[in-house]
Amino acid sequence: MLRSHHCGELNENHSGEEVILAGWVQKIRNKGFIVWIDLRDRYGITQLVFDEERSPKAVYNKSLELGREDVIQIKGKVIERESKNPNMPSGGIEILVRELTLLSASKTPPFTIENETDGGDELRMQYRYLDLRRSRVRENLIFRHKVTMVVRNFLSQAEFIDVETPYLIKSTPEGARDFVVPSRMNSGQFYALPQSPQTFKQLLMIAGFDKYFQIVKCFRDEDLRADRQPEFTQIDCEMTFVEKEDVLAQFEALIQHLLKKIKGVELGDFPRITFAEAIEKYGNDKPDIRFGMTFGDLSALVQNKGFNVFDSEELVVGIAVPGGANMSRKEIDGWIEWIKRPQIGAKGLVWVKFNKDGSYKSSVDKFFDSEDLSLWATATGANAGDLIFVMAGPTQATRTRLSALRMEIAEQMGLRNPEEFAALWVTDFPLLEWDEETKRYHAIHHPFTAPRKEDIGLLDSNPADAKANAYDLVLNGNEIGGGSIRIHDTALQEKIFDLLGFTEKEAQEQFGFLMDAFKYGAPPHGGIALGLDRLVAILGGSETIRDFIAFPKNNNGRDVMINAPAALEDAQLNELYLKSLSKNP
Amino acid sequence: MLRSHHCGELNENHSGEEVILAGWVQKIRNKGFIVWIDLRDRYGITQLVFDEERSPKAVYNKSLELGREDVIQIKGKVIERESKNPNMPSGGIEILVRELTLLSASKTPPFTIENETDGGDELRMQYRYLDLRRSRVRENLIFRHKVTMVVRNFLSQAEFIDVETPYLIKSTPEGARDFVVPSRMNSGQFYALPQSPQTFKQLLMIAGFDKYFQIVKCFRDEDLRADRQPEFTQIDCEMTFVEKEDVLAQFEALIQHLLKKIKGVELGDFPRITFAEAIEKYGNDKPDIRFGMTFGDLSALVQNKGFNVFDSEELVVGIAVPGGANMSRKEIDGWIEWIKRPQIGAKGLVWVKFNKDGSYKSSVDKFFDSEDLSLWATATGANAGDLIFVMAGPTQATRTRLSALRMEIAEQMGLRNPEEFAALWVTDFPLLEWDEETKRYHAIHHPFTAPRKEDIGLLDSNPADAKANAYDLVLNGNEIGGGSIRIHDTALQEKIFDLLGFTEKEAQEQFGFLMDAFKYGAPPHGGIALGLDRLVAILGGSETIRDFIAFPKNNNGRDVMINAPAALEDAQLNELYLKSLSKNP
Repeated sequence: MLRSHHCGELNENHSGEEVILAGWVQKIRNKGFIVWIDLRDRYGITQLVFDEERSPKAVYNKSLELGREDVIQIKGKVIERESKNPNMPSGGIEILVRELTLLSASKTPPFTIENETDGGDELRMQYRYLDLRRSRVRENLIFRHKVTMVVRNFLSQAEFIDVETPYLIKSTPEGARDFVVPSRMNSGQFYALPQSPQTFKQLLMIAGFDKYFQIVKCFRDEDLRADRQPEFTQIDCEMTFVEKEDVLAQFEALIQHLLKKIKGVELGDFPRITFAEAIEKYGNDKPDIRFGMTFGDLSALVQNKGFNVFDSEELVVGIAVPGGANMSRKEIDGWIEWIKRPQIGAKGLVWVKFNKDGSYKSSVDKFFDSEDLSLWATATGANAGDLIFVMAGPTQATRTRLSALRMEIAEQMGLRNPEEFAALWVTDFPLLEWDEETKRYHAIHHPFTAPRKEDIGLLDSNPADAKANAYDLVLNGNEIGGGSIRIHDTALQEKIFDLLGFTEKEAQEQFGFLMDAFKYGAPPHGGIALGLDRLVAILGGSETIRDFIAFPKNNNGRDVMINAPAALEDAQLNELYLKSLSKNP
Repeated sequence: MLRSHHCGELNENHSGEEVILAGWVQKIRNKGFIVWIDLRDRYGITQLVFDEERSPKAVYNKSLELGREDVIQIKGKVIERESKNPNMPSGGIEILVRELTLLSASKTPPFTIENETDGGDELRMQYRYLDLRRSRVRENLIFRHKVTMVVRNFLSQAEFIDVETPYLIKSTPEGARDFVVPSRMNSGQFYALPQSPQTFKQLLMIAGFDKYFQIVKCFRDEDLRADRQPEFTQIDCEMTFVEKEDVLAQFEALIQHLLKKIKGVELGDFPRITFAEAIEKYGNDKPDIRFGMTFGDLSALVQNKGFNVFDSEELVVGIAVPGGANMSRKEIDGWIEWIKRPQIGAKGLVWVKFNKDGSYKSSVDKFFDSEDLSLWATATGANAGDLIFVMAGPTQATRTRLSALRMEIAEQMGLRNPEEFAALWVTDFPLLEWDEETKRYHAIHHPFTAPRKEDIGLLDSNPADAKANAYDLVLNGNEIGGGSIRIHDTALQEKIFDLLGFTEKEAQEQFGFLMDAFKYGAPPHGGIALGLDRLVAILGGSETIRDFIAFPKNNNGRDVMINAPAALEDAQLNELYLKSLSKNP
């Protein structure tokens, strides 16, 4: 071992001990006759002192040549500092260095290795191994490790078995695009990388594994939006002989345990809300419930009162901004500008001040009197001192826009505190969605999701009205997981495939193995998959998953550090019986 | 929940309780007026009783229609059995069934779901979900889960951090063939699936992560030999500021802990043996040391004594078979036939019986007298009562053949007891191997392996003589892991790439990111990767890794259950800018 201790463990109790440390030069302070160096490793920082008088001359001179990020090994004695730093575990001591070995010199790094770095995104991605030296980034990944260990041990104790499912599987046209892998041994044929181990975990239930989990990479060849990755990690779980309530109870317990263990936070029972209610009250299906500002439907109250802007629209809906009656005209105009941005696309915003003294002042005083406005206050839950913002327009778009406004106001008011946590279940999603373009239904969740028992009849009469026996787990306004009770019989599965536009032959070709398996005693089962990247980011107080992935790809799906993907040599393509038609090599 | 208990937990203490169970019909015994059914789930088997008198008539009648592998739910009362089965945890009780629900009917399975099944390999692979119902196969996978949990918790406690490295990386021509993944967003370019996370774990060390582990899928597009899989799982580890001894101590402790925890076996300190010694003493570099029969080099003793068969050969080498002096002439001839099989390829075998009474009898009595033979006995470590087998031929081939004979004799003598464990370290492998065909060196381990410090000079004078600072972990005659101290400076890495025939440009293109990283303060580091599939198989008392993989592929790299790989639709290929040249769709 090249060290006797690491850089985070020495303190006054070690005074007088001879130690060997190794690490990176974080900071150098040269006072002319004395040099202090902060030596860094994963565990902390220990101060080294090289002294013209107390250190060997050669060692002192050598210390003058060191630079940032050099890797050194030193031998020396632990001594108490004259001026201690109480903010560091090792702040009471320093090491008077007797021997110094340069293990590995460093060029000047392209950006500073500090939490507040001067490196831009691209540069830090290119030198990701240097970016990872910054303690904030490193701590994020250590945090991720802790989260996965807690999850694994919890699930293992609950008798879930970690089973590895294959990565080289078969491509299916349903859902997002697959990444494919040409087979050399089976010429002209391709594997696909899994978008999720969905069918395999169902087969494990049919095989009697009872409870399964896996923390597993999944792959989706999508055009990347910000903060999506072509490869991502799922906590994938499945249980047998369960109903919806059992799955919810199990994973509510997991998240409660995790929050308690990792953040010291006690979450109570998770609220439940149906998809329809979430849309009505929050304008989206992953509401942040750490704050109020729920939607009040004003349509019935305001229409046919002679105000044309409202009369002509499908929906009029408002929210109460707590304490917003203090807002200046300029601030209000700022919000009106904000919602007119093309990303939001609203036409305008009506405002009502419900003043502390109980009076009202609004942008529509000409059309509505205090009596009208007090009804609006009731509908939006506004108290004296609040401001009511009202939007009108087509139902779905208006809800989406008001939801965006609600989130942004909360953000700016500091109501989205990353150290506060609120989870909830969203249930009763629609099972299918009609697609005008392809003239067929799409599965909202995936084709293996069971409808609610009471809705099975609707599959024949009115499939779009059938609700799924599915649930999403939402944390702080982010969907962190989703699951469902699965179909476990061939007839129902065939009916769903039929509604999704599969011919019998296609269904058999793609999923014949699963439908065959249903014929040999398939137990009722259901499960969930949690997005680990996002879960960890939110628990870590961020919404940027890239900060919690060691080697993320950029928005073009490239790893700019290793420069992948890259062209192949022709010989390699020939072996795969492939020819590239691309003009960009 | 569709059950109140599972099928492994009820016993006499539950007598009189009303319970709900769900599971599979394992066995039906119909006595005319009473039907017993063994109900199975992952946890065990519980006996159900349907009685013409004591069960409701309808329930009794329904029970008569059940078949093997039907999934049922029952409600009933726990009662004590008249004749108890002391071999089962639930053998003291049965459930008198009051209600019966058929949850899912089963067709007659294509083979019996018993440990001794009547299904052939191909059939069981096609219906793997049914094969996995057999308790032996299921227990193998539960065992695998336990092993990984022990490994994860041990490493985590030892401050190793589980970091996920990417699956979509860059293809490198070094080593085995990569599986590649065409990129749609970067047309004409390909990712590769990792053969191991080698360069990424080194970058993590350069990034200061200090200790890393990951249980990770790796991919190799090789022509599959028996018991190889295109995707396999590694316990991948790396440590910083360590020397060889530190890595060995850490992973010796891991394996000791694992054996203790999982098998209750105390392993002492692992013996060490150099590669050269392993080859000399055992004829291979992964010796099974659970038994003796080490090689005795007889060349100097036997040559130039007028026996032409020996005189003309490079090496004459023997082993002593314990108690073998009892072997009949027919048995000895059997071994002579065995070593002549084309897979072994030896020309013949000389034998010497060292009888209990101290006399000798050999197949070469004409050329060698007792005095000669007693020297052979000394050289091979033979005792009175043993048989000595002697082979002659070219050094390397002869050692390989004698090694095969040694292993087979041990197998047949029951010396390879799967419940006995012996681990050792093999060290000092050659660093490079000259390849006549390509006229360049190949890396024995991989191009990032450091030579022993004392051998660095040899890289200029005689590279083939340089030994690597590398080590293999061998358990029961199987290589279960290998690793090395890595190169951590650019100049040495460049020299190795040069010896391996990389041009400077190629080295930069393939591994530029790593060589750049070396320039920014790369610490000394080293690590190991253990093959999880094989480790688990050996701990589980088997050498067949397929028995410990949930969904293995066959020798053509096919998953015969899902029928992958498969042809893609043209549209999918077009999106990837690819054209298939294969004539087999």
